[in-house]
Amino acid sequence: MWIAERLNERGIALREVRVIPDIEDTIIDAVDALRHSFDYVFTTGGIGPTHDDITAASIAKAFGIELEKNEKAFKMLEDHYGLTELTPARAKMSMIPKNARLIPNPVSAAPGFIVENVHVMAGVPRIMHAMLDHVLSDLEGGVPFLSNTITCGLPESELSEELETLQEDFPDVNIGSYPHYRGGRFGLSIVMRSEKKKQLEKVSKALIKIMRDHGEEPRAISMQAPVKL
Amino acid sequence: MWIAERLNERGIALREVRVIPDIEDTIIDAVDALRHSFDYVFTTGGIGPTHDDITAASIAKAFGIELEKNEKAFKMLEDHYGLTELTPARAKMSMIPKNARLIPNPVSAAPGFIVENVHVMAGVPRIMHAMLDHVLSDLEGGVPFLSNTITCGLPESELSEELETLQEDFPDVNIGSYPHYRGGRFGLSIVMRSEKKKQLEKVSKALIKIMRDHGEEPRAISMQAPVKL
Repeated sequence: MWIAERLNERGIALREVRVIPDIEDTIIDAVDALRHSFDYVFTTGGIGPTHDDITAASIAKAFGIELEKNEKAFKMLEDHYGLTELTPARAKMSMIPKNARLIPNPVSAAPGFIVENVHVMAGVPRIMHAMLDHVLSDLEGGVPFLSNTITCGLPESELSEELETLQEDFPDVNIGSYPHYRGGRFGLSIVMRSEKKKQLEKVSKALIKIMRDHGEEPRAISMQAPVKL
Repeated sequence: MWIAERLNERGIALREVRVIPDIEDTIIDAVDALRHSFDYVFTTGGIGPTHDDITAASIAKAFGIELEKNEKAFKMLEDHYGLTELTPARAKMSMIPKNARLIPNPVSAAPGFIVENVHVMAGVPRIMHAMLDHVLSDLEGGVPFLSNTITCGLPESELSEELETLQEDFPDVNIGSYPHYRGGRFGLSIVMRSEKKKQLEKVSKALIKIMRDHGEEPRAISMQAPVKL
């Protein structure tokens, strides 16, 4: 969620998430598939000092490039730990695919790295956040998507035809319908997303009117393109 | 997480998770890749009555089979809503790939379905839980994995060599190392998973000894194969 939100602020839509085990072939296959399908790929985790940290080596294999001691990364680790504390396990974290660009780690020194469009980050959320913040400004983004969410108590099937018509009338707005069950009752959240503020406002107004025509007041709203209820 | 836990109780390991958008080609590609790679595939969401509910149609296309009105499913919807309330939008939820087996929905009637090894379930957690519980008993499972987790305050790099040796000594136990940052301090959770209770106990004991050799008492433990601290 955090990654999706930060990317969205830059006008980059998160299109797919994969959670995969620390198995070399699985990592290689996923990186291969995703780096060709998408503009940017972000990985989290698996770049620490332990035996199950195989992301750097797997990424190197996925690209068919060598894993080597990165002198800059080694220096970062040395500065952080001091030479006496820089055990072989810690030094392992300086093994990085050749010619990769480093992503600094302000928390615990061991850097992430970038190979082409693949951004390899730490798994600890606090470190990952710092790493993503660091690379965000280099990413080429579009116009950020705005989203309005309106929640009501109507059953999804009661609105479905009107939602479909609304979607057809406003092709520039992505309309999603998400039923839920919370606090003992069902509810329905309609999420509208668009780069176009005016369109988003129009759809939101139309949706509120539809709900009212069904005798329902919106239960909750969250709007980046606010309209009057 | 809930799915992973329930599957694990049946001795089925969750190997991969994908979060994908409601785009037909993306759904087809993912289902195609996953159904050939794994014994079972479970999907959640996208089988409701609205325009963005395209999972059933996409699954039919992925298998190259027809989407048709399923009379049993239609009957379930009819019994639930009554004929007058069974709008075309609701009736859409009886459109299911030909010859698929239905998964009953005790909450809101609209069923899930099974095509070969792909289990298509609702997205609303409460309904999804009921659907998974229904199909679980038909799945061929193995011996459930047990897992022990021991958390300490040592840096990961201080344990990494011993963890690697431990992993080599106990190939039947999967040892994972997960650093975190909570409540203002770093911590390290070692998660050990195995079908073999005795092996798991041995590894856990060995790990506690290693931590103590480093002058550290475990901070927290969670054990399905308990050993004395």
